[in-house]
Amino acid sequence: MSQKINVTIWNEFRHEKEKEAVKKIYPEGMHSAIAKGIAADDLNIRTATLDEPEHGLTEEVVENTDVMLWWGHCHHKDVADEVVKRVQRRVLEGMGLIVLHSGHYSKIFKALTGTTCSLKWREVAEKERLWNVAPAHPITQGIGEYFELPNEEMYGEPFGIPEPDELIFIGWFEGGEVFRSGAAFRRGNGKIFYFQPGHETYPVYYNENVLRVIGNAVRWAAPLVRIKDAAPNVEPLEKISPKNVSFGKAGVLQTPEL
Amino acid sequence: MSQKINVTIWNEFRHEKEKEAVKKIYPEGMHSAIAKGIAADDLNIRTATLDEPEHGLTEEVVENTDVMLWWGHCHHKDVADEVVKRVQRRVLEGMGLIVLHSGHYSKIFKALTGTTCSLKWREVAEKERLWNVAPAHPITQGIGEYFELPNEEMYGEPFGIPEPDELIFIGWFEGGEVFRSGAAFRRGNGKIFYFQPGHETYPVYYNENVLRVIGNAVRWAAPLVRIKDAAPNVEPLEKISPKNVSFGKAGVLQTPEL
Amino acid sequence: MSQKINVTIWNEFRHEKEKEAVKKIYPEGMHSAIAKGIAADDLNIRTATLDEPEHGLTEEVVENTDVMLWWGHCHHKDVADEVVKRVQRRVLEGMGLIVLHSGHYSKIFKALTGTTCSLKWREVAEKERLWNVAPAHPITQGIGEYFELPNEEMYGEPFGIPEPDELIFIGWFEGGEVFRSGAAFRRGNGKIFYFQPGHETYPVYYNENVLRVIGNAVRWAAPLVRIKDAAPNVEPLEKISPKNVSFGKAGVLQTPEL
Amino acid sequence: MSQKINVTIWNEFRHEKEKEAVKKIYPEGMHSAIAKGIAADDLNIRTATLDEPEHGLTEEVVENTDVMLWWGHCHHKDVADEVVKRVQRRVLEGMGLIVLHSGHYSKIFKALTGTTCSLKWREVAEKERLWNVAPAHPITQGIGEYFELPNEEMYGEPFGIPEPDELIFIGWFEGGEVFRSGAAFRRGNGKIFYFQPGHETYPVYYNENVLRVIGNAVRWAAPLVRIKDAAPNVEPLEKISPKNVSFGKAGVLQTPEL
Repeated sequence: MSQKINVTIWNEFRHEKEKEAVKKIYPEGMHSAIAKGIAADDLNIRTATLDEPEHGLTEEVVENTDVMLWWGHCHHKDVADEVVKRVQRRVLEGMGLIVLHSGHYSKIFKALTGTTCSLKWREVAEKERLWNVAPAHPITQGIGEYFELPNEEMYGEPFGIPEPDELIFIGWFEGGEVFRSGAAFRRGNGKIFYFQPGHETYPVYYNENVLRVIGNAVRWAAPLVRIKDAAPNVEPLEKISPKNVSFGKAGVLQTPEL
Repeated sequence: MSQKINVTIWNEFRHEKEKEAVKKIYPEGMHSAIAKGIAADDLNIRTATLDEPEHGLTEEVVENTDVMLWWGHCHHKDVADEVVKRVQRRVLEGMGLIVLHSGHYSKIFKALTGTTCSLKWREVAEKERLWNVAPAHPITQGIGEYFELPNEEMYGEPFGIPEPDELIFIGWFEGGEVFRSGAAFRRGNGKIFYFQPGHETYPVYYNENVLRVIGNAVRWAAPLVRIKDAAPNVEPLEKISPKNVSFGKAGVLQTPEL
Repeated sequence: MSQKINVTIWNEFRHEKEKEAVKKIYPEGMHSAIAKGIAADDLNIRTATLDEPEHGLTEEVVENTDVMLWWGHCHHKDVADEVVKRVQRRVLEGMGLIVLHSGHYSKIFKALTGTTCSLKWREVAEKERLWNVAPAHPITQGIGEYFELPNEEMYGEPFGIPEPDELIFIGWFEGGEVFRSGAAFRRGNGKIFYFQPGHETYPVYYNENVLRVIGNAVRWAAPLVRIKDAAPNVEPLEKISPKNVSFGKAGVLQTPEL
Repeated sequence: MSQKINVTIWNEFRHEKEKEAVKKIYPEGMHSAIAKGIAADDLNIRTATLDEPEHGLTEEVVENTDVMLWWGHCHHKDVADEVVKRVQRRVLEGMGLIVLHSGHYSKIFKALTGTTCSLKWREVAEKERLWNVAPAHPITQGIGEYFELPNEEMYGEPFGIPEPDELIFIGWFEGGEVFRSGAAFRRGNGKIFYFQPGHETYPVYYNENVLRVIGNAVRWAAPLVRIKDAAPNVEPLEKISPKNVSFGKAGVLQTPEL
């Protein structure tokens, strides 16, 4: 495609305003750091945050997004259900979604996986080494066998997700745990990538490997199609043999609201 | 296990009261027909229906269910969200769930798959032949290469579900369509089986192959474990090397309500 | 990539020389018909056939192939094991492989799947309708909900393959069977697509939908990487704690020939 | 089933005879240690080793085995191809196969996966912690969240296997690597479990968690069916419409030898 990919980076954007330690690292918010970090000619990037009207995710914005990134942490509950449904519907139509770090517990990720998305955790600035277990995958291009983050929050197994369609990274933590730190899913016509790095108190979104993975994931998740949900009542393609039953129609199927 | 499997068969149970054609086939409801059809010494079967208090799915009932069956059609919306969450939580803890026919559009199936669950459909009493594509699977034991239903509602592809963990049956329809008529999923600690047969205007739940598949699925889905959701903050198992960063804790993770 | 994709179309090419019915349809061989049918600026296409030296698949040819197509039928046994291993090794390094029709029983497909690849079959020129069950997949772009072949050999389930990583097409046959007619696999660093159409006595490889699917599959299977097999003995990345066991090295691991 | 499961534990059994360090740990061979370790009333266990005639895996033995265990290391090449095919055929008919440690490079595992099965490795007696990522799976029953081996050979990612149907354990290694240390596959009618622990110079097969996993895996892999390979030429189940093509039969499909 010669057309640019429309990317919307969504961020809760409260830690950066409320906590000095975070503000120092990301004075303009994590969304801005990521936007700068992955900026490229083929990407048309905008950002949106929790405290904007409709969280910055109006019908128009969601309609015109090809790939959405999602970072949230302590305020998942403040995201309106209506907006979550809007985003979910759009993913199932074909939009890509990249869920970052504590976004594992976001309403949108839980709605799309159907599972708890729970995990173990610990915050001692320990080292994580992310092993590339899918070296032929578009998401890992330019990443070597592994990369390291000197300080990261530990996320540990078991991780309450469906078996990923493709496992991309496994994280090794200094404190003794492992985690499926990169996991790819297909849902409806959309692609989803969960990526573990990004605790707010460490400068993870300046790491060039992290940014490269996110940039790769955006291009991988960019949709080829957009297909509206439908449950059509269709005519037979072949001749139906005579039936000796009389059958009453019990009702017309209505496509339920998502 | 010498212990019996506690089975709860849930049915919308309105067509059978409101429509003569359906009442004739299932005078006591589809749930009763299925309960009789799969009755066996190792199963402890109860039923529950939409119009009972809490739809018959009180905390106590759900707590004490190992495998739940679900048939719904025109009144999915009348199922209380709170009850749906209760059932979903229980599946993720380990309960089995068998979703029948038009239950594809139930709130519980959509919540667990995360997808539209949409499909094509047609109601002309046509023949369906279900091909067994997993002859070594517990669910297909005693079923031959295929079985036929002389009259069934057509459900056609594309079916809006995640790629099944195991594809069990593919349906061939007289009118020219195909359908993934038996599909198995693992979600959390629970197993889910979607099974296409069961339109209310045909006597499908008296068919011995259909009953055998359902009975097999109940035993397959019976849980080995029950694991409550948790997101523990854990101590390191290995010594953490000294860090030259000071890191502020940004907040304590709360396990969100499902 | 601005670089062209190097495609090698391999064909058994005996039916076309020996059987009048086939020769009439494909006077220059199926490989030539496919080559013409998918010709495009981004593809650099060559062909190779069984009766050439090394079946036309010399080290040099295989080295310089990005995506290989494979059609074989009655002479799978005549393909030299050494050539099969060469192709398998190349797939695992990253080459794409598209296995056509009766190639399901080729040595190369069986080697890569590990399974019998058996199926039911019947040759009565019946109609096949291929349902697109993955409308967002690169392989199905430009194909509608389904396409039909007026005459095709029936291939029926159960099909002795591993669960595909992505199911793309399900075939409906006039005579009453179904088949996983399009199935995608990842093996090592390579992508594999099995595609059912192509019985030699019908002009299937002139069908524009079939050609479009093959062309799409070629681009989907084109590799991003080439990674040579290795089993490195590596140094620790972290300090190993003192051990109070003396351990003798039992032997150095040798990477076995494939 | 009241019937016992017929288990055959196959071992290369050369290290134990040739190397003092190994002989001390397993004077009667690893196969004997495992046989004693998993002995139970529902199992009928025999052993077989490389240097017996036909490696102890005669037609009769293989015919009468429900689940086979496989440990090999430096002498994979000495296993006769004919015996490998016999075992592979039997797995595809329904036999379970449990591949242990360096068996990752055995002919039988490579034949069934179709891939290189390569990995990183290091032999410094380091600690491995195996994380249970599938707590509801039959294989992990009785195992807690993780278990540790004080000394194990490191096996590291990327591991050259197809995406497992179910990932069971992820290993954390003291030296900084991770590994998919427990991985379950379905192939044909058989189940396969790869389990990483078991380097010959450490007493791994006396570890109660390791033995419990192996015992669980044996019961999980025990077959429900045995289905001989076939590719039947079948009659139509539905009436075929008249065709205006004359089609010559191009040849009768022969089921190839595996």
